[in-house]
Amino acid sequence: MKALVYHGPNQKSWEDVPDPKIIDPTDVIVQVDTTTICGTDLHILKGDVPAVTDGRILGHEGVGTIAEVGSAVHNLRVGDRVIISCITSCGSCSYCHQGLSAHCLNKEGASGIGWIFGHLIDGTQAEYVRVPFAENSLHLVPKGVSDEAAVMLSDILPTGFEIGVRNGRVKPGDVVAVIGAGPVGLSAMMTAGLYGAARVIAVDLDDNRLAQALNFGATDSVNSGHADWKEELMALTDGALGVDVAIEAVGIPETFDMATEIIRPGGSVANVGVHGKSVELKLQDLWIKDVAITTGLVSATTTPMLLKLVAQGRLTPEKFVSHRFTFDTIIDAYDTFGRAAETKALKVIITR
Amino acid sequence: MKALVYHGPNQKSWEDVPDPKIIDPTDVIVQVDTTTICGTDLHILKGDVPAVTDGRILGHEGVGTIAEVGSAVHNLRVGDRVIISCITSCGSCSYCHQGLSAHCLNKEGASGIGWIFGHLIDGTQAEYVRVPFAENSLHLVPKGVSDEAAVMLSDILPTGFEIGVRNGRVKPGDVVAVIGAGPVGLSAMMTAGLYGAARVIAVDLDDNRLAQALNFGATDSVNSGHADWKEELMALTDGALGVDVAIEAVGIPETFDMATEIIRPGGSVANVGVHGKSVELKLQDLWIKDVAITTGLVSATTTPMLLKLVAQGRLTPEKFVSHRFTFDTIIDAYDTFGRAAETKALKVIITR
Amino acid sequence: MKALVYHGPNQKSWEDVPDPKIIDPTDVIVQVDTTTICGTDLHILKGDVPAVTDGRILGHEGVGTIAEVGSAVHNLRVGDRVIISCITSCGSCSYCHQGLSAHCLNKEGASGIGWIFGHLIDGTQAEYVRVPFAENSLHLVPKGVSDEAAVMLSDILPTGFEIGVRNGRVKPGDVVAVIGAGPVGLSAMMTAGLYGAARVIAVDLDDNRLAQALNFGATDSVNSGHADWKEELMALTDGALGVDVAIEAVGIPETFDMATEIIRPGGSVANVGVHGKSVELKLQDLWIKDVAITTGLVSATTTPMLLKLVAQGRLTPEKFVSHRFTFDTIIDAYDTFGRAAETKALKVIITR
Amino acid sequence: MKALVYHGPNQKSWEDVPDPKIIDPTDVIVQVDTTTICGTDLHILKGDVPAVTDGRILGHEGVGTIAEVGSAVHNLRVGDRVIISCITSCGSCSYCHQGLSAHCLNKEGASGIGWIFGHLIDGTQAEYVRVPFAENSLHLVPKGVSDEAAVMLSDILPTGFEIGVRNGRVKPGDVVAVIGAGPVGLSAMMTAGLYGAARVIAVDLDDNRLAQALNFGATDSVNSGHADWKEELMALTDGALGVDVAIEAVGIPETFDMATEIIRPGGSVANVGVHGKSVELKLQDLWIKDVAITTGLVSATTTPMLLKLVAQGRLTPEKFVSHRFTFDTIIDAYDTFGRAAETKALKVIITR
Repeated sequence: MKALVYHGPNQKSWEDVPDPKIIDPTDVIVQVDTTTICGTDLHILKGDVPAVTDGRILGHEGVGTIAEVGSAVHNLRVGDRVIISCITSCGSCSYCHQGLSAHCLNKEGASGIGWIFGHLIDGTQAEYVRVPFAENSLHLVPKGVSDEAAVMLSDILPTGFEIGVRNGRVKPGDVVAVIGAGPVGLSAMMTAGLYGAARVIAVDLDDNRLAQALNFGATDSVNSGHADWKEELMALTDGALGVDVAIEAVGIPETFDMATEIIRPGGSVANVGVHGKSVELKLQDLWIKDVAITTGLVSATTTPMLLKLVAQGRLTPEKFVSHRFTFDTIIDAYDTFGRAAETKALKVIITR
Repeated sequence: MKALVYHGPNQKSWEDVPDPKIIDPTDVIVQVDTTTICGTDLHILKGDVPAVTDGRILGHEGVGTIAEVGSAVHNLRVGDRVIISCITSCGSCSYCHQGLSAHCLNKEGASGIGWIFGHLIDGTQAEYVRVPFAENSLHLVPKGVSDEAAVMLSDILPTGFEIGVRNGRVKPGDVVAVIGAGPVGLSAMMTAGLYGAARVIAVDLDDNRLAQALNFGATDSVNSGHADWKEELMALTDGALGVDVAIEAVGIPETFDMATEIIRPGGSVANVGVHGKSVELKLQDLWIKDVAITTGLVSATTTPMLLKLVAQGRLTPEKFVSHRFTFDTIIDAYDTFGRAAETKALKVIITR
Repeated sequence: MKALVYHGPNQKSWEDVPDPKIIDPTDVIVQVDTTTICGTDLHILKGDVPAVTDGRILGHEGVGTIAEVGSAVHNLRVGDRVIISCITSCGSCSYCHQGLSAHCLNKEGASGIGWIFGHLIDGTQAEYVRVPFAENSLHLVPKGVSDEAAVMLSDILPTGFEIGVRNGRVKPGDVVAVIGAGPVGLSAMMTAGLYGAARVIAVDLDDNRLAQALNFGATDSVNSGHADWKEELMALTDGALGVDVAIEAVGIPETFDMATEIIRPGGSVANVGVHGKSVELKLQDLWIKDVAITTGLVSATTTPMLLKLVAQGRLTPEKFVSHRFTFDTIIDAYDTFGRAAETKALKVIITR
Repeated sequence: MKALVYHGPNQKSWEDVPDPKIIDPTDVIVQVDTTTICGTDLHILKGDVPAVTDGRILGHEGVGTIAEVGSAVHNLRVGDRVIISCITSCGSCSYCHQGLSAHCLNKEGASGIGWIFGHLIDGTQAEYVRVPFAENSLHLVPKGVSDEAAVMLSDILPTGFEIGVRNGRVKPGDVVAVIGAGPVGLSAMMTAGLYGAARVIAVDLDDNRLAQALNFGATDSVNSGHADWKEELMALTDGALGVDVAIEAVGIPETFDMATEIIRPGGSVANVGVHGKSVELKLQDLWIKDVAITTGLVSATTTPMLLKLVAQGRLTPEKFVSHRFTFDTIIDAYDTFGRAAETKALKVIITR
């Protein structure tokens, strides 16, 4: 088959590789029909993720058709159309039992568990992919749900919901600020209504993205480049006391600091951003404020629930698709996604 | 009457002052029978709390007898024996309704709300004290509960429980570390069993305090002065993955950092310590760990519940009493408490 | 002033009565601008509520303007426009502190607490009304919210939300059935989306009401007069296992039984209906099903939250208004509301 | 091997049967070292459970040593000492993911899932047993935990805790009544302290059992044969308002009714008893009381947590053992357990 293979920093190619095989009785082989590119893939290509080595097939998002099932797989069949979750988990360890599949303790051979596709094992930017512990990672796609909607459930929609909205304990009537209007921030905005947020305030430096955010569930927007951004934002909150929940979806010290400064006493900061260095936490102000700060990697346990809402038309994640490619133009897809500021790419779709 | 009056940094005296009067119809005047000294009182005396001005009567903990009730007080009577909670709250604002009385929004005259005794209004180290919004701040003491037990419910026991144990979401089977074995840390240890902790690990630099901690609910202890303290502690956790909950009860950057380093993925850090400066938060490690970090000031909403457990003999906070004084030796009480390292004072009791 | 006075079964008149006076320092007198009639008022008029005696002014819903405030009222002023909550509570007892104001333990004179307006004390179908413990029962109406929307927050909207949706633990993705499409059932349908319900199925015997339900948040409807209503309904649930939450909003044994028969293992039945007799609970089937059955009287603690959502345009309870009257035609209003099946009355509005 | 085989109502024998074999790659064969008898086994023997057919090996509790593992089993090894949970579950379906393993949707061949040992597949009262989906049903026994303690975690301790204490939402300071002081009721009493109950009141007709209950965590007891039992019990509750939580552990209409009559407004009834017929639910009284009534079959998801507490010495379930037998006297064990009122049997232990 063909696949997108990493060959060290800034080196990738769409090339012939051996077909994947069933290794474990709980494996399934999926023919990939639709995949997409994540910001993490760009980090890997820059060489920022040393665990990814030469020869690795990239990608951890995808929708496809089951081609082969292992002997211990009970409820999946060849021909089933499935979402491939970005998280691999055993379903039997203490972390899986507490709903934190991202921290699954099971070790499948040398490959580890959690986020492993396109990282520790071969990924989804390929014609076929081996899916370990398939019954915990594959979700049947209901009729009427498009591949383009479904592939957003591999990673970004559950990430925005679980790590932003749910960890932030959004509840009916809340004023929620989401800092960063990229795909994951927009996913948090799109799903904040699932817990009845009264206001969802998009915060970003880019007016185009702020305008776009209003189509993804934001009710208000604040450009954080304005000198008085904080006053603008506080004026949108009850009694100017601050937001109930601040969701950080950027991953740098400045935006984390913003999040801690705009929450009301009793509020929550849900960090979704991937951080590369320490931040300063102003405990001299925060110790008395009854706040909760949370972090997390998606466990994708809410994918089936989100999928029901997509099937009902209550969520429309196909809106994220900004560009479309096929496997033989996947290099162009990377180019377009890599220049997102310029191309205004949100999610690029790559199909068979 | 006589009272302990603050006269600027390092200046205090037990002196004659006017008797307190009912100002608001929801006020009650309490004759103080038993009071105690808090670490915060020492901070005030050093001049660290500028809001406290010359002439202020100190103290925010006490047990006493009701001497007079305002016209809008329905359920308290002269002669009732009561605990005076350290927190004043209106019972009607949005923060009171969400159980965060510490952040009560009501403003009673110029005095503010929340922690105000011995801070913004006159306090409990006096023969009498005026208690605003008395029905929300006074708790009837059941027969059989001593003043010495009851006075621990003014502040330290609810603080350790609410801000440490409850904010930390301790649950049955958890391994809990409490960093700092002072009165509030010991209160967290004493109440961790109320949510079924399997192990409670006391962490401190002082072997005497660690030994004492085992009488307050700790099951294990680790001296954090040991070079390999972290390994010692991790060996006490399931699979050496880390503690489920780390309670920070010191208030300095080093101990906060320790707390974030010893929690397992999915664990909680509950900050109880009062911090004077920023801390470094290592989000480069923590962003992926699914942790929650909480802060808070006691709201004392759990005082009635803790009081029931004291009345049942399930909690024995009278253990905190290390020294006893009377009002006319209150200056000695301050001296003893101020040299706690040397005198081994935990809580000093001062009675009429 | 004039008021609607109960004079025994089937006897009422709009007549002159003395103006209400401040009795307790926590009282407020409100000039009633808008009121409405509840099904409970009809029950009272039939003589079904013996606690209501000759001479009582009826009504427990209203929006008005503050005319006078007691001496212990801190945060309300003459001229403020307010919603009068149907529940009276002290804010200081253990039930108020746990958010169950409906079961407030405080006793104000002989009048009791909880639902007392138009029951144990004079109510809101009058030109003026005395509101005890006013700071816990009155809610400022934000600009832009109409009286007609606001008056729905006195009782029906919080009842449907608290006792139906919240007690039923509705969560994102749930399939919710609401049995009974009267005002309270429709309130549950309108607010089920605040916890992200995927489907809201209206169940009723009346096709007109079912059609109407689709304007109030229902996504599907089932006429329970159909022989195969249960199969119809189960086909709308995941794997035909049953609904996640069944909300009973009728109050008779048959509808309660329906609710218990349509829930999936692990589901919830939230009873909102007022029942006059026992029901049969089929524990021989239910003991193994991991279900929760809840009951309750509204505590109206969520009124401020719902009001925020109304102010944001996320909830539009003015939809409930089917007919409009003034105080001098209040007898006609009762007549229209009393023949709701015929007049298709939902909520009748009565204004000054 | 030898096993206890059911041969129709009142017919059983300890006889030679074929050894169990691995059927599915996720199976494990366990050599049973210790087993016990459950009240359910007696029901089966009476013919009350028609799904159990001639030839079935009985028993769903056991501790043993792994003899053989299937090819898809990753984390269990021959020689491991394990608790066999009474519940079989796949770990991958929506019910397993929500922690309701008892309602697992997976179907393993014709055998079904949930409680299947000694019911739909061969059970644990045998020298060897086949355990399907072994990684979700077997728990490694830590050193220092005896077989006699461990076998109580197969069923009764998690049942009392999950369906009684946890479903009943016991919280710190609660007054809890447990109706029925048999093994499961005693398990609820033993574990009520894990959520900080202030009082645990045992209610039973038998004074001997009530006396025994005080050794299992009860703080008080009430003999429900007394004419004034209800007044006796209410006097033990706060303000005589009723218990916070009533746990029904008998399974007949009378005891269920008692449970609903003794709860305070806002309280919970957790039904643990297995019911054979309908009960009358007095909704005319309960509709207004804000109560929750729950039911359930153990999912055994808390077994690892309970096991940690046993290993720490915080729970001592070996106390349940009243009699000891070996496999070759298992018929005597049944006889002793079947005459529990007379023999005072609680749990009878049967070893290899």
